[in-house]
Amino acid sequence: IIPAPFFPEYRVFAENAGARVVTVMCREPDFQLDIKAIESAVNEKTKAIIINSPNNPTGAVFSPDTIKALSDMLNDKQAEYGTDIYIIADEPYRELSYGAEVPYIPKYYANTAVCYSYSKSLSLPGERIGYIFIPESANNSKKLYAAVCGAGRALGFVCAPSLMQYTVAECTDALPDISTYKKNRDLLFGALTDYGYKAVPPDGAFYLFVKSPEPDANAFCERAKKYELLLVPSDDFGCTGYVRISYCVTTEQIEKSLPAFKALIEEYK
Amino acid sequence: IIPAPFFPEYRVFAENAGARVVTVMCREPDFQLDIKAIESAVNEKTKAIIINSPNNPTGAVFSPDTIKALSDMLNDKQAEYGTDIYIIADEPYRELSYGAEVPYIPKYYANTAVCYSYSKSLSLPGERIGYIFIPESANNSKKLYAAVCGAGRALGFVCAPSLMQYTVAECTDALPDISTYKKNRDLLFGALTDYGYKAVPPDGAFYLFVKSPEPDANAFCERAKKYELLLVPSDDFGCTGYVRISYCVTTEQIEKSLPAFKALIEEYK
Repeated sequence: IIPAPFFPEYRVFAENAGARVVTVMCREPDFQLDIKAIESAVNEKTKAIIINSPNNPTGAVFSPDTIKALSDMLNDKQAEYGTDIYIIADEPYRELSYGAEVPYIPKYYANTAVCYSYSKSLSLPGERIGYIFIPESANNSKKLYAAVCGAGRALGFVCAPSLMQYTVAECTDALPDISTYKKNRDLLFGALTDYGYKAVPPDGAFYLFVKSPEPDANAFCERAKKYELLLVPSDDFGCTGYVRISYCVTTEQIEKSLPAFKALIEEYK
Repeated sequence: IIPAPFFPEYRVFAENAGARVVTVMCREPDFQLDIKAIESAVNEKTKAIIINSPNNPTGAVFSPDTIKALSDMLNDKQAEYGTDIYIIADEPYRELSYGAEVPYIPKYYANTAVCYSYSKSLSLPGERIGYIFIPESANNSKKLYAAVCGAGRALGFVCAPSLMQYTVAECTDALPDISTYKKNRDLLFGALTDYGYKAVPPDGAFYLFVKSPEPDANAFCERAKKYELLLVPSDDFGCTGYVRISYCVTTEQIEKSLPAFKALIEEYK
């Protein structure tokens, strides 16, 4: 089960492993998890749910109450079906939260695998370094750990690049300069909503999820190109009618883009 | 089809992809490809043969005549069955040849995929950098290229580490100091055969493949541990009765190991 919108590679990875992907839309307009809708999608064949918080593409951070509700529901379902249902917590943006608490899933739910990447926290996206953590609380924790190692071996991930292993070992306490991301977020969100765009207020990550002013987000993205604005239509993330804007750029670049965003929405008035 | 002995991960990768592995023993004592035996193993379901030259674990370099004979046989079989049979040429040791010509497979055979790694040529084994080359001569070359890229995406190999991409781009003409490897090879092969070991004279790579003085190579490796000699039994490479010794170490380390090798073989006299 993958809550939508979602990072498109989840589908590729899951289907390549022979899994069937079931997507469940998040609630609008805040894009929090819809626990009731997820519950309806769970059945005796459900193996895992992928949770990505802070979220790409929406910037939503799932609250402790939401994670508690998800955990209670999954525990009930595990008991009902006598199965293991894993939470796969994909958390590359964990350190990029603008004040909202990012609940640590293994504290709430035993059958969890935490996937972490240093790509965002240390701005090292090309260096391919991260980890998977299997908590001892997980059922058959040692076997699950061995299965993750075995899958890595079969897929050819014998080990992560060694230079970067040494480098991040020296940087485990380093944190990104969140103030720059926050400044960019406030500037972009403030200006765009001021111009008349409808956007999800992002609590984390470095994306702004904006409602397309016309139903077809692809058409809107094409129109934006005239203004040299490169937006990603939400269709790629498993839902329609939105676009993703990355603000992982210089503040100056955002400042320079604002007149273009203003002119673009004027076309729809 | 995988000629044995072979790098054990070939089986893991192939079976993970849903392929059935058929192994064919190389000729003894020189461990060249046995073209007749490979021909007997080819049938209408054969998709590919993995050729690894210079070879791990034997150090054999397959000669131009051998590759020509293999290519002729495979071309005949392709015509007979109306199928594509690929040569997957795994060549991390290409630059580590002690004078023997390492034939470039796409010159001989159209349906080839060349897998290269800088792990050995630049002594960067932990840095995870290499490439796959699909020659234009291959049938449906563009589709095959797209399939390789798609497989990489589905397996999670989005790109190789970026720092090392920049680094090897500056080092494409660099070659390893083969003289040190050659010195180690001559010293180890000379001394061990002098003591009474039977070994395959290696033309490439940095391994010596030695016949176990007792039929059970695992038992021989256990006995060697008493002398602080760590040997790899050939069973791991898909054949019995041999051990692999790596000479990718300092010459001093080899010199210091020789009395231990001598004492070890004395136990069998």
